[in-house]
Amino acid sequence: MKKPLIFVTNDDGYAAPGLATLIEIARRHGDVVVIAPEVSQSGKSHSITMYSPLYLREIRREEGFEMYACSGTPADCVKLAFDHLLAERLPDLTLSGINHGSNSAISVLYSGTMGAAIEASFYDRPAIGFSLTDHSMDADFRASAIAAETIISKVLARDIEVPLCLNVNIPVAAPEQIRGIRMVRQNEGYWKETFVCRKDPRGRDYYWLTGDFYNAEPDAGDTDEWALANGYVSVVPVQVDMTNHRQVISLADVFNE
Amino acid sequence: MKKPLIFVTNDDGYAAPGLATLIEIARRHGDVVVIAPEVSQSGKSHSITMYSPLYLREIRREEGFEMYACSGTPADCVKLAFDHLLAERLPDLTLSGINHGSNSAISVLYSGTMGAAIEASFYDRPAIGFSLTDHSMDADFRASAIAAETIISKVLARDIEVPLCLNVNIPVAAPEQIRGIRMVRQNEGYWKETFVCRKDPRGRDYYWLTGDFYNAEPDAGDTDEWALANGYVSVVPVQVDMTNHRQVISLADVFNE
Repeated sequence: MKKPLIFVTNDDGYAAPGLATLIEIARRHGDVVVIAPEVSQSGKSHSITMYSPLYLREIRREEGFEMYACSGTPADCVKLAFDHLLAERLPDLTLSGINHGSNSAISVLYSGTMGAAIEASFYDRPAIGFSLTDHSMDADFRASAIAAETIISKVLARDIEVPLCLNVNIPVAAPEQIRGIRMVRQNEGYWKETFVCRKDPRGRDYYWLTGDFYNAEPDAGDTDEWALANGYVSVVPVQVDMTNHRQVISLADVFNE
Repeated sequence: MKKPLIFVTNDDGYAAPGLATLIEIARRHGDVVVIAPEVSQSGKSHSITMYSPLYLREIRREEGFEMYACSGTPADCVKLAFDHLLAERLPDLTLSGINHGSNSAISVLYSGTMGAAIEASFYDRPAIGFSLTDHSMDADFRASAIAAETIISKVLARDIEVPLCLNVNIPVAAPEQIRGIRMVRQNEGYWKETFVCRKDPRGRDYYWLTGDFYNAEPDAGDTDEWALANGYVSVVPVQVDMTNHRQVISLADVFNE
């Protein structure tokens, strides 16, 4: 049987430890091609590069493994993979991450990691974004590696319906402390910012964006925030139809004319 | 009665003609504060600026009108408005656009215009993104202005449920050719890219991203693509829950452990 072709990307850049962890797992399962951003693309959401060209730089190439750094965003990396570099043989699976930092709840919207996973899911092959709820560069990825291995094995072993895009978040914990894996929904809430205002050496004000997550449903027991707070790996299946179908009906009388 | 406070932003930058059109309409309805990007942020999706500070530059200030340019993304502009500049008196309504170019179908995910509108909708006040399906800087905004006036008047006159985030697209047509306004859903499909590869003066390959929309349901009669193709202004109510709720159930047995 032919080995699966696995495409790997991230938003922390090609040198991030979380990416190295994911590549190691992917290589146990198939041939691997990586296109990851040259520099950090955290918070870049589903951005694409429209008004400047993209560069692709070869980092490494050996039997069953190729790695490139791309000057663009995570979504650009996916487009370059599916519509250019791997257009002749599309990847069987896309993995994004492992992100240094949580992408649960509304963060799915801001996340470059998930921007890439969502983009890859358009091609009717499974895509999975992994994020560890720890921003530090020396984060402990042991529990994440076990969760990723488990989930990737399941996706490769079964014929799961597509489109399939999973937003997987792993809580900070030693592997033996993880209580399990839970399919859950995106927690409601949003990030409320506190801007730190400073003066630059030329006397101009500048602002640092620093926020806290406002949890609109702290008592819910079926969300990603709940799972993470209770020691579970959270898995949210993500869709790309952003239509509020109820409002299409309820507001038709207001706006149609 | 106190005039409403209307916040206006866009993704084409503070000097774009589409923004000027929207400001003109907004000023007929209330006090207006504008924070718009310094430079084009097309395709920036819901990006936020995490690793560099933001600058806010005053462009104009007079009775009932303030305008600033921001060094960041459209979503940054909204955050600076709601969590800093206007935190004492939150806007009653947010308008984003009028974008030079369509944001129908899957483009809602890539759109900086809609990134801003979605961000503003978190604050439980209506937010509307407007886009004209014409990229040119000298686009004819007459039909868009009429549609925006109609929709804004309705939103301000009624007590419509929140969260409310509308993705409004206007087809290229003379005002008398527009057949009406239709509440519709987001058309399925995605952008398939063709990368134009060139060599830079130093001999390195570089790539321009150029795509075409693949319409996955060309025969549907209730989508934004259908409305635009048939001479209607399309209005899609947008939600921020990206959970595929059906899959939460159907895949629980596969992943829960």
